[in-house]
Amino acid sequence: MAFNWQIIDFGSVTSPEGFVAGAVCAEIKKKDKLDLALLYSEVPAIAAGLFTTNKIKAAPVLLSQRHLQSQRAQAIVVNSGCANACTGERGIADAIRVASLTAKKLDILPDGVLVASTGIIGVPLPMDKIQKGIQKIDLSKDGGHELAEAIMTTDTFPKEVAVVVTGREQFVIGGVAKGAGMIHLNLATMLCFLTTDARVEANFLQSALQKAVDISLNMVTIDGETSPSDSVFLLANGLAKNSPISEENSEAFQEALNEVCLYLAKSIARDGEGATKLIEVVVEGAARETEARQAARAIASSPLVKSAIHGSDPNWGRVMAALGRSGVGVMESKIDLYMNQFCVMRAGSPVAFDKRELTESLNSKEIMLRLSLNMGKRKAIAWGCDLSEEYVTINSAYTT
Amino acid sequence: MAFNWQIIDFGSVTSPEGFVAGAVCAEIKKKDKLDLALLYSEVPAIAAGLFTTNKIKAAPVLLSQRHLQSQRAQAIVVNSGCANACTGERGIADAIRVASLTAKKLDILPDGVLVASTGIIGVPLPMDKIQKGIQKIDLSKDGGHELAEAIMTTDTFPKEVAVVVTGREQFVIGGVAKGAGMIHLNLATMLCFLTTDARVEANFLQSALQKAVDISLNMVTIDGETSPSDSVFLLANGLAKNSPISEENSEAFQEALNEVCLYLAKSIARDGEGATKLIEVVVEGAARETEARQAARAIASSPLVKSAIHGSDPNWGRVMAALGRSGVGVMESKIDLYMNQFCVMRAGSPVAFDKRELTESLNSKEIMLRLSLNMGKRKAIAWGCDLSEEYVTINSAYTT
Repeated sequence: MAFNWQIIDFGSVTSPEGFVAGAVCAEIKKKDKLDLALLYSEVPAIAAGLFTTNKIKAAPVLLSQRHLQSQRAQAIVVNSGCANACTGERGIADAIRVASLTAKKLDILPDGVLVASTGIIGVPLPMDKIQKGIQKIDLSKDGGHELAEAIMTTDTFPKEVAVVVTGREQFVIGGVAKGAGMIHLNLATMLCFLTTDARVEANFLQSALQKAVDISLNMVTIDGETSPSDSVFLLANGLAKNSPISEENSEAFQEALNEVCLYLAKSIARDGEGATKLIEVVVEGAARETEARQAARAIASSPLVKSAIHGSDPNWGRVMAALGRSGVGVMESKIDLYMNQFCVMRAGSPVAFDKRELTESLNSKEIMLRLSLNMGKRKAIAWGCDLSEEYVTINSAYTT
Repeated sequence: MAFNWQIIDFGSVTSPEGFVAGAVCAEIKKKDKLDLALLYSEVPAIAAGLFTTNKIKAAPVLLSQRHLQSQRAQAIVVNSGCANACTGERGIADAIRVASLTAKKLDILPDGVLVASTGIIGVPLPMDKIQKGIQKIDLSKDGGHELAEAIMTTDTFPKEVAVVVTGREQFVIGGVAKGAGMIHLNLATMLCFLTTDARVEANFLQSALQKAVDISLNMVTIDGETSPSDSVFLLANGLAKNSPISEENSEAFQEALNEVCLYLAKSIARDGEGATKLIEVVVEGAARETEARQAARAIASSPLVKSAIHGSDPNWGRVMAALGRSGVGVMESKIDLYMNQFCVMRAGSPVAFDKRELTESLNSKEIMLRLSLNMGKRKAIAWGCDLSEEYVTINSAYTT
């Protein structure tokens, strides 16, 4: 292979050449919290996007879908604290205005602006605060970190990363995400923005994004919810001056993009609302990849599995119950199940284990559940988190 | 209508003529808790059953499915504390043995015995305790209440009811259920046993049961889980000597059976693990009934909706997000949404409401969420419960 990649220390969405960002406290949430941010590429970029599968789509989603039809974009404006969803025609008008205020500030056309909002549903955007806020934002090469902070809601840490690819061609890919709640497989992200200075072909970019998201953000679940706001944007501004990347020479780009998305996906799972543990569910030996995915996702979503892991309870029967509920055709008498390194079921029958040792092992911060279906050669991995009392506490008083 | 029905005070599964029951503490769970029970019809009964959709099926489910092929049964034996699921070939052998021990005690054939188990998955039945227990059980006309208690696991109260139908024909229908956790739509019940002294035709009984369960137990959700043990049995022994009921003259029977199943379904929702509130989700104005059902179920299942209701938080956007996630085709601009009697959204736009009044109203024990999709005339109702910290506490230390 003619390339290497590595994670950049303190990398962010502004690590790739030509991207700047900034954020302010517009007081949409509360005083002293960043809640409005801008990301800007100094030159127009090729753009790709993926959006929520929820039939109720927030106004910014509808607008950004329209703006992405050109496969070009130059800026992303994002606020937290108010999702601008279920806000009727006023919501659409507000999203359009946010785009045009941003375009005016940056001296670009409004349809080069992608808009994203996250926060409470059913409340209109405070447009006066947003207008003033946009004017106040200072863009800088270091601003990616501010943006990462500004899009947090119940997140406990910012989620950002950048990867540099070296070798025959050199370029950087950066990414930032907001997670925490309303997270389920199928674009299991509230917001994720990806940037790169790589030169790419427009049609290729969308399929590369889909591939990366399929094995990462689409395999994360926190609570089985899917928000009306979920948006993933990828901007490629070409300033790295590499030979243009298309399907044929995409190996390095795809691998680095996968890595960025996997990093963000796992960060989202690790920081699920109230989470204390990351759960990795590996399903192997499936006849089809779709079945492996479906099984892994069902197990990672199971509140009973998640609660058991929270309590370090080796109650593996719940993993089997979730597998069975997934709808995937299995033969019970063929299945092996491992919790961390402990085999608890072999060929469909319980295996005696040292309960104290296993319980102790389940006390760690990263838990692996591994199932061998022994029906084929396909495999999938899903990520989730434990379910703690804290999840309920966080979500029982969100607007009040 | 030539009939009336009413709920019998302190009714149970032994209220219909010719049914007796009893329970003992076999020490499967702990000392001093009833955990093994028998239900017996003094004459052979027509029988119907519905079983879990989980692909992993507990041994008693596989055995009872086989025994029900004859559409006849005379006894049900049930234990709590151990589900006899994921127990391999030994599990099947144990279930067969439980049926034959019961048959021997009652002097009937083993295939007249339906078997059910609920409790921890992946642990074999303690057969010595069960053998001794079965021998000790005393059957009595009052034993329905003991059975109701014996099948409880994390339930906080027994769930039982009986309805008497009077009019041209007279008969009684009784029912008992175990709920609490691993409860999701599609046979949202761990165990439910129904009895009647009505005379019915065998083929009719199965379809009547399916209809009643479709609008009741299939519309209840606690946690989105489906257990490998879910079983609903209905025994009709004919001792009421009414004219045989078939599809043509089924009105009174169906209505009473629906009522028994609805009563039990709501009891299950009300007593969901950690629940403090019953949530009734009404979706009306749907183009198709399947869509109304799908939407109501998605909302009742939503952990974010359930958490908000727990905290009496009028965060109605989550109801819309869950509706959108349900996959049902909706037009946002047509939707009206009510929380209890308060309209919070009309024709897709937020409606101002008195937050204090609504929050206060959400403090009650029964919460109604009502959506008008305004796309047609179909309607469905689903039941669920709030999600409390207690749910996690219960489920994070179940086996340990």
